[in-house]
Formats: sequence, structure tokens, C-alpha cells
Amino acid sequence: MTATAQAMAEAARQASRRLAITPAGQRDAALQHLAGLLEGRAAALLEANAEDLREAGAEDLREAGALDAATLQRLRLDPAKVAAMAEGVRAVAALPDPLRQVQLRRELDEGLELTRVTCPLGVLCVIFEARPDALVQIASLALKSGNAALLKGGSEACRSNALLVELVQAALREAQLPEGAVQSLPGREAVHALLQRPDLVDLVIPRGSKALVRAIQSSTRIPVLGHADGVCHMVLDEAADPAMALALVRDGKLQYPAACNAVETVLIHQRAAARLLPRLVEDLRPRGVELRGCARCLALIPDLLPATEDDWDAEYGAPILAVKIVADLDEALAHIRAHGSGHTEAIVTGDSAAAARFLAEVDAAGVFHNASTRFADGFRYGFGAEVGISTGRIHARGPVGLEGLLSHRYLLRGNGHQVADYTGQGARLFRHKDKDINQP
Amino acid sequence: MTATAQAMAEAARQASRRLAITPAGQRDAALQHLAGLLEGRAAALLEANAEDLREAGAEDLREAGALDAATLQRLRLDPAKVAAMAEGVRAVAALPDPLRQVQLRRELDEGLELTRVTCPLGVLCVIFEARPDALVQIASLALKSGNAALLKGGSEACRSNALLVELVQAALREAQLPEGAVQSLPGREAVHALLQRPDLVDLVIPRGSKALVRAIQSSTRIPVLGHADGVCHMVLDEAADPAMALALVRDGKLQYPAACNAVETVLIHQRAAARLLPRLVEDLRPRGVELRGCARCLALIPDLLPATEDDWDAEYGAPILAVKIVADLDEALAHIRAHGSGHTEAIVTGDSAAAARFLAEVDAAGVFHNASTRFADGFRYGFGAEVGISTGRIHARGPVGLEGLLSHRYLLRGNGHQVADYTGQGARLFRHKDKDINQP
Repeated sequence: MTATAQAMAEAARQASRRLAITPAGQRDAALQHLAGLLEGRAAALLEANAEDLREAGAEDLREAGALDAATLQRLRLDPAKVAAMAEGVRAVAALPDPLRQVQLRRELDEGLELTRVTCPLGVLCVIFEARPDALVQIASLALKSGNAALLKGGSEACRSNALLVELVQAALREAQLPEGAVQSLPGREAVHALLQRPDLVDLVIPRGSKALVRAIQSSTRIPVLGHADGVCHMVLDEAADPAMALALVRDGKLQYPAACNAVETVLIHQRAAARLLPRLVEDLRPRGVELRGCARCLALIPDLLPATEDDWDAEYGAPILAVKIVADLDEALAHIRAHGSGHTEAIVTGDSAAAARFLAEVDAAGVFHNASTRFADGFRYGFGAEVGISTGRIHARGPVGLEGLLSHRYLLRGNGHQVADYTGQGARLFRHKDKDINQP
Repeated sequence: MTATAQAMAEAARQASRRLAITPAGQRDAALQHLAGLLEGRAAALLEANAEDLREAGAEDLREAGALDAATLQRLRLDPAKVAAMAEGVRAVAALPDPLRQVQLRRELDEGLELTRVTCPLGVLCVIFEARPDALVQIASLALKSGNAALLKGGSEACRSNALLVELVQAALREAQLPEGAVQSLPGREAVHALLQRPDLVDLVIPRGSKALVRAIQSSTRIPVLGHADGVCHMVLDEAADPAMALALVRDGKLQYPAACNAVETVLIHQRAAARLLPRLVEDLRPRGVELRGCARCLALIPDLLPATEDDWDAEYGAPILAVKIVADLDEALAHIRAHGSGHTEAIVTGDSAAAARFLAEVDAAGVFHNASTRFADGFRYGFGAEVGISTGRIHARGPVGLEGLLSHRYLLRGNGHQVADYTGQGARLFRHKDKDINQP
């Protein structure tokens, strides 16, 4: 392990201990300072970002594997984006303190009271794409929840990120908090070294490709919170309202095709296919969407591209849409079980029984009725911000806001209580009487 | 992967899908049947267990590494234990249904409502010690929470476990549930094969040695919920009541020395040492406790065994106690940070400021004031039963009951809502209005 990575992680561990016992006001003050600095240093930030963009753009001209338009878009800052970042930080500061919240208060016996209170996880290691606003969101949520964060952002954003971490650390100092609480890791080697140190890192959050997430999961004993991929379906049921169906497919596919919650495959009930498929093609083709259909789709619209087996598992991240005609809801559910990634699945239907069954049976982080899959997002859910969207079932599922960065401790207050008194002949019995968690 | 292990895991996956959508009454009926079968087949169960014990006992005479008294004790069933197992299953059946509980209900906008509801994790793979009552607890909690469970118990209990799984499967059939919901894995190879299948197993719960837990964490991408070890401390503060201090050390060390929540090290405030240490030695020695002291302890009690550095990290699981004199609470907290395993830490003090600081600053699953560390347990906390005690911070921490076996899904019900309407110029604004989760 490089001396640098170890020293940084040790500083993060120390900072996390300080953060865990700070009052909310101090953490919120750091966030308020940060918001002010983002506004005050906006010009310098835009300049650093412009340099990042120049280099990324230059590469774009030189190399085939260089950044595409969507990636450049995420990398780019403008005055409105910087203002939105500052607003986002203030919104996180305004949230209630997530720490030391009482989740359970139970009298085990007379004078023996158990409470469960929230606490931070400790030290997070977050690997994320070349997207400066992600850094600010992650740092804000980490600070608010009392966690230290070791950050490794996409290297294309290195200048923007370096300045942002500088601003976060200045804000921490201003609030008398240790600047080790948020640090930028120097490179991939540092990340790999830290993956071997469960004593120094409590949770790894990789944002990015499925391959990245799997590689990290395979190389560490530290828990990993990763969203693997988003193969989201939209089912157009027999009773789907045609106008709503078209609008929701359009929104799900086109509102932001690179997003993990974009629709990749549309499943159309066979009794709605003749009615819906031609209108779908007519609506999407002029908008530049490439449609790939199953054999039954091609029978209806002969000039569709034929879908292959691979299409049913594809996360296009692009204006491409696979379409399949299914015999009924059973076949749609089976297709989703076989090919869905557990991210977000939606049904469009006016039939409340079909909707109820879909909502009850589909096993995914988000299961939607008559709404676009694109709503699966921490901001839209009202979490203030998100560190990512988890497709795992453990610890956090769906958009991960503050709650996903918390653990808890059980506090037990007694008066000399011994377990021996509760065992064997004539043992005392537990009361297990729950008390109001809002009472002090 | 062996055909058997794969077929078993696929049957478990299918069963888990059925379980996830069953009404509570059906799962509870299976549990009631199981309780009845445990009572009705008690004689056969005791016979199978007697054979397990004979074999384990025979090995005990032959081999050095054979089972010790504590392990044999855990392996042994008697009529009272079988009756308690049946009672335990009925207690789990009587708990409220943990599935489909609404955890959040939020109006995102007019006609667009988000709810978060609990759901099972899916398929659990649980590796546990040679302890038949653990099998019944784990199977009960899994069924109650709608999860399928693949079980690998200690091989010394193989006959007891085989019969218990038979009874569980008979109860499942009786309740018209798939018997694939609870299965016994044939051997270690099956476990290792399943560790490579994140598609078939959602959570691995290894109970047992630290080495076992680490080996499993290192060899799988599947999330692991393991309690690593329990190096629990009891701090005897300057203001500790002497009688209470002695009683709690005695309970923490001797009530069940093999438990992970037993006390391993006592830290005594220097200004209480002269008062407490001699009485502690006097109290524990006649009870067969071996005491190992720091240099300052030896200065007070010259015939103590000297503690080495290794003693501060030892989980004895035996009537051995390490004792250290500390300058103040700061030194006690630093010692716990350096050597504690994050399981359960206790302070004995009449000083409320010292207690408050201890409760606020110690980072462990359980932090106790004037109570024995032995209370850290799912039954004693009122969880009905436990599948283990987690010293990790992710997903579950402390005793893991039903709640630790749950995930959640976000359900969104709209009326054709599109994300495009909430972005750009003239965008609609989200309401994010929380509603009463108890309203239908």
C-alpha cells in the first residue's frame, strides 16, 4: 500500500470519529460555507472545467475511444450548473440531522432500557464518473451524515475535481472540522490499495460500468454498494391508454437515454400490438430512435430491424429500443424476471387488477404504474440528493440518499442488570415494552 | 458447480418467488405445523441427536481437536430444549407480518404517489455451527420473512439437522408451500459452488469462526453478513459501584464464557484500582477464572499472571479475563478503539457525564451502561429470535432478527406522469408531501 493512500485513509478514519460526534450545526455550517465558496469561486471553477473540457475535446478528435457527447455533457459546467450545485448543497444542509435519531426505544425490564440510534458508517470510498456535480453531491451527503469520504472521480474531470475538493476542505476548516473528512485519492492504485483495508474503509461505492462494479466486488472483503446496470422495461398492457403509452415510452427512452433508468425494452400485449406498435414506430422514428423488434413485431412492421437474443439484455444508453410482443402479463413478468436488472420496471395499463399484480410481483428496486421509469432518482423521490442507485437488495435499494449512509448502535442503560437473573429456575421475565421514540 | 447444488439453489429461487407473494397466514400456518411436528416427533429427534452425540463423544476420546464441552452442550438436545424450540417457532409465527409494510408514503406531485414497502431478500445461504436449535431459529425467521434458505449446519449435528429439515419441509407441504424454501446443503463443496452464483444467492450468513467469515468474504461477490468476533470490554470507572462492578464482571465473564458477547477484558480506572482489583481477584479466582493483568495490575496483585500484547486482542471463549488499569476514560476509549471488535462495550459508573460520553463515543453494535454485555442478543432485545449478531455496519448491525432479512421496493403510481414535465423552462415542481403511512 502506498504511504500516501494509507496516510489519507488514516486521516479519514480520524476525521470520521470527529464527525460522528459533532453537533448538526457544525456539519451544516461547513455545507453553508461550501455553498458560498461554490458561488464565490465560480469563475475559477469554470476555468478549471474549461481546461478539462479542452483536453477531453482534444482527445475526442484524436482517438476513437474518446469521450462521447453525453460524457462531455456530464463533464461540462456552466454558470447555471454551478448555481444549482450551490443550491443543492444548501438543500442538503436544510435537511433534518440524520444522526442520533432514535429508531427504537424499548423497556426490556424495569430500569433496563434499550434504544437504537442512527450513526455514520465511518469512511466511504466512492469511485465515480467524470462529473463534477457528482463530487459535490457525494461530499455533501457524506458530511451531512457524519461520514468521511475518499473520492476518486473520473480523471477527465481532474482539474474541476481538484478545485472542488479544495473548496470542500476550505469549508471544513472554516467550520473547524478536519479537512481529512473529504479527500481526493490520487489514482487507481490508491483505490486498489484501499480495497485491501477493511480496517480503514467501511463501504465502497463504485458508480460506473457493470464491469467496474464487478471487478471491485471481486477484489475486496469490504461491502460494496454498486448499481450494476439498468435494463428497464415498460409493459404496454392490453388496457393501456394509447396516448399515455406513447408519451411514457418517449419520456422513458428519450428524456435522457444515457441514464440507467431509461427504458431499454418495451413489452406489448398481443391484443394491443396492432393498435400500439405502428403508432410507436411512427412516433419514435422521426425522433431518431432505432427500433429492434421480435419476429411478431416484424410481422406487423416488416421494415423494423430484427432484435437478437442479446438485445433483451442490452443497456443501450442510446436512442435504441427493443420491442417484443408478449402473449399476456405472465409472459411479460417472465421476460422481466429473465432479463431485468432489478432497477426499475413499469406498466402502462388502465386495468387495476393487472397493475396490482405487476406492483405485487415484480422484484425490482422500482416498480411503477402509469409513470415514466425516469422518476427513479433521489432528487425526484425527495431525498435531497443521491450517492447512487443500488440494484442490490442488501443495505440500500433504489436511490441512495442519506439513509443509505447510516448505520445504528444499540444503547442499553441499566442499573446493574445481569443476564443470570433471566435464566433458569425462577428467572425474571423480559417486558419488551415499546415506548414512544419521540419522548426524551 | 455440482448439478445438485445448482438444482437446489434454483428450487430455492423459485420457492422464494412464491414465498414473496404469499399471505402472512400461509407462512404462519407452516410455522404452526412445524411447532406441532417438533413436539410430535420429539422422540425421533432426541434419538437422532443421541446418535450425533455418540459419534461426537467418541471422537472426543480419540482426537485432540475434537469437540469440547461447550460444543457438545450446544449440540445436545433434551426434551426441554425441544419444547423451547417449538415455543420459539410459535413466538415467531405470532410476530406481525414483516412483508409489505409501508415504510414511506409520499406524494411527489398531484396524482403521483411513491410508497416504499418491505419485501424479502430472496435466497439466503446460512452456514452455522453444530447446533440444532439454530437451524430451527434460522428456518423460522427465513419463512416468516418470505425468504428461502439454503442451510449448511455443522456436520457433527448431521442426523439432527437432517430430521429437522425433513420436519420443516413437511410443514411447508402441509401449508401448500414449496419445500424448496428450506433445504440442507450436502457439503462444503456445495457452499463453495454457490458462493460463485450471485444470481442464485442474495445473502450469505456465516456463523462461526473469524477465519470462516473472512474466507467466505474473500471468495464471493455475494454480500456477506458475518459476525467476525466479539472482543468485548467492561470499563470500571472511577465512580463504579463496587458491588455492581463485581456482579457485572462476573455475569459478563462467567454466565456463558463461550458466547461472543462475553467480556474478555476489564479496564479499571486507576483511581478505582486499589479498591476494585483485589475484590475482583478474590471474587473470580474461586470461580475458576484465570486473570491476566497489565504491569500496573501486577504491582497491586503480584501473583497475577502477566498479560501480553496478544491478550488485548484475544477472544478467549473461556474463563480467562484480561485486566488493565487505565489512567482515565480517554485511555479506556482509546484501548477500545484499538482492540475492540465493535461487538458490545460496557461501562460501570455512577457518573452520568462519564456514562453519556461513553454512550456517545464508543463505536460498537452495542454500547451499555451499568448492564451486562450478555444482554446483546436477539431474544433479550425482543426480536423473537436471531439469525446471528452482525459486527458489520452495513445492512444490519447487532442482533439480526426479521428486519435484517428484509429489503424494500419503491412503488410509484401515476397517471401518465413524465419526467420531461419537471425539467427545463416552466417545469412543474415536485411537492414531496409525506402522508400517513398507516392510511390505506
